[in-house]
Amino acid sequence: MKAFEFLNNEYDGGLTVVLDKGLPPKYVEDYLKVCGDYIDFVKFGWGTSAVIDRDVIIEKIKYYNDWDIKVYPGGTLFEYAYFKNKFDEFLNECNNLGFNAVEISDGSLDISLEERKFAIEKAKDYGFIVLTEVGKKLPEKDKKLTIEDRIKLINYDLDSGADYVIIEGRESGKGIGLFDREGKIKEEELNKLIKNVDVNKVIFEAPNKNQQVGFILKLGSSVNLANIPFDEVISLETLRRGLRGDTFGIM
Amino acid sequence: MKAFEFLNNEYDGGLTVVLDKGLPPKYVEDYLKVCGDYIDFVKFGWGTSAVIDRDVIIEKIKYYNDWDIKVYPGGTLFEYAYFKNKFDEFLNECNNLGFNAVEISDGSLDISLEERKFAIEKAKDYGFIVLTEVGKKLPEKDKKLTIEDRIKLINYDLDSGADYVIIEGRESGKGIGLFDREGKIKEEELNKLIKNVDVNKVIFEAPNKNQQVGFILKLGSSVNLANIPFDEVISLETLRRGLRGDTFGIM
Amino acid sequence: MKAFEFLNNEYDGGLTVVLDKGLPPKYVEDYLKVCGDYIDFVKFGWGTSAVIDRDVIIEKIKYYNDWDIKVYPGGTLFEYAYFKNKFDEFLNECNNLGFNAVEISDGSLDISLEERKFAIEKAKDYGFIVLTEVGKKLPEKDKKLTIEDRIKLINYDLDSGADYVIIEGRESGKGIGLFDREGKIKEEELNKLIKNVDVNKVIFEAPNKNQQVGFILKLGSSVNLANIPFDEVISLETLRRGLRGDTFGIM
Repeated sequence: MKAFEFLNNEYDGGLTVVLDKGLPPKYVEDYLKVCGDYIDFVKFGWGTSAVIDRDVIIEKIKYYNDWDIKVYPGGTLFEYAYFKNKFDEFLNECNNLGFNAVEISDGSLDISLEERKFAIEKAKDYGFIVLTEVGKKLPEKDKKLTIEDRIKLINYDLDSGADYVIIEGRESGKGIGLFDREGKIKEEELNKLIKNVDVNKVIFEAPNKNQQVGFILKLGSSVNLANIPFDEVISLETLRRGLRGDTFGIM
Repeated sequence: MKAFEFLNNEYDGGLTVVLDKGLPPKYVEDYLKVCGDYIDFVKFGWGTSAVIDRDVIIEKIKYYNDWDIKVYPGGTLFEYAYFKNKFDEFLNECNNLGFNAVEISDGSLDISLEERKFAIEKAKDYGFIVLTEVGKKLPEKDKKLTIEDRIKLINYDLDSGADYVIIEGRESGKGIGLFDREGKIKEEELNKLIKNVDVNKVIFEAPNKNQQVGFILKLGSSVNLANIPFDEVISLETLRRGLRGDTFGIM
Repeated sequence: MKAFEFLNNEYDGGLTVVLDKGLPPKYVEDYLKVCGDYIDFVKFGWGTSAVIDRDVIIEKIKYYNDWDIKVYPGGTLFEYAYFKNKFDEFLNECNNLGFNAVEISDGSLDISLEERKFAIEKAKDYGFIVLTEVGKKLPEKDKKLTIEDRIKLINYDLDSGADYVIIEGRESGKGIGLFDREGKIKEEELNKLIKNVDVNKVIFEAPNKNQQVGFILKLGSSVNLANIPFDEVISLETLRRGLRGDTFGIM
């Protein structure tokens, strides 16, 4: 039972996807006692999984799964494996380690639409939940993508069988995707986007509090948010519920 | 016994109030071995207590109390309960969970002076240490408060029975209270304030290092500081003692 | 065995020096399971060691040593002790606590070149690995050091028997040493420096990701980096290996 239960409203929260860039295993077990109820997916960021012991990866996925949290390695690791012609080995290893989902992306690599579709379908065939990502890692490349390009690719991925599409925001949340150089949401682009895609299937990377607040005020508590720093999960939950100054009296 | 004990001076340190926005319980137990001696109060930030399991809250308060640290829920939770006409339930639940103090604030809500006094007195009647807070959560509202308004309210709260008054700085420490948009202390306002209040009863929220340094250089090691990030407690202690470059040779 | 081992290349990584400013002991033990392989030195930042219990210091050094990681107290503690005429007590206490190395610096203090040499030699006589640091803690003092001054001092320290020389960057990485006010590397100064010193003996403080990326792109994966925040060790390792967007396809 939660504390102060008489204060809680029923509410419909969106997906919360947390960035784990190398948390210690026992710490994860401990920390889920605080916020395990509020996490839907955990991403082991970019290629971090490839420099950590198998035993540790397996142990951590187990802790997350105990709370019904799905885990996947960052898209960069898929790209790295794909680039080295080891996509099958990658999927098999994801399977052996216990990952529940994979992320298909082209943040650092150029992949044709046909390859992209093939990768999504293959990962689905292996039984994984598939998240794709739209956006480039380097700001100078990412800014060449128009909002129309992004919308087209989101719908292409969903048509190809992806379960969710993530909008790139990186760990910094600045000068990338829907964010300007100060990390503010580009309202006009967001407006276009939400008119042209199924927003329930879209997950917005929003590492910074002002971005989380912005998406919640715009799209409601049920907005799907990703790249949440692990120590901001409880804060985000209070923002979704109007239990923090920024959304108090509004949610 | 501390390491390098032959280097330590006797000194009179001010209150240190730490922001806990959802630390894991076993981690807290572990971390107090490092810095439990230097913490006076812990605040479970804003409404975070209301989304965490009762058992976890109780366990964490126990660990803090083992080190003689007093714990209270953030003022926003009081406001939320007050707004919903559940002030008594709130105080009872604080009691049942083991909180030692409560914070009375109007950061997100407008409360009349009479209500404010009533809330302070009622919380005292329940046996809690009472901290109040002066300042608004939203910068556009907060900047309407003059320094004279703040001084008046500080003295009103102390006259009403509050044990300490906290000066709002939020987690960011920027564009709020005594801080300008870059997070620098507004010297002139601080000067006015310290001339017109009992500074031993005032606690300055100072989340950023440059602010901690500023207050220590201005008011000495005995200045009371709040909203200290949990992983900055040891750093703050070294600042108070002249064991870090910023205050070396001065303290 | 690491996960996704089929993706790993042989590579020659430089030294990684982590800043520990008061981590809890059991947390350290837990966290080394994730990244113990990638750390060479841990610095207990500035004077933090002097406010922590001896037992905790000893326990933490033991965990680090179990992974072949060398530990040393920050240079500011040396300066504090030197200033108080307690250099021998300092070295004895370092020895008793189990520290493997010491840092000789003049970030907050002015020390003559003769004294500097004497301190290096004495610490070597005690059996410690000796790291020195070049740079001042306060930006207004530090900026008076030309790059030629820094080069001269680096070579002086190495000639005096120092094992490594650290280039000051502080915890912030801004407006200090080789970094401009925004934290960008001053390319011209770095170019001069690497032409005039043995870069294998130099360790660059690089607390921020853009700085780590900058040094790796400039000097390769084998560059020695210090003041790495403890939770960025895995990220740094992926940068060195081209497993993150910023260095993907380059390393």
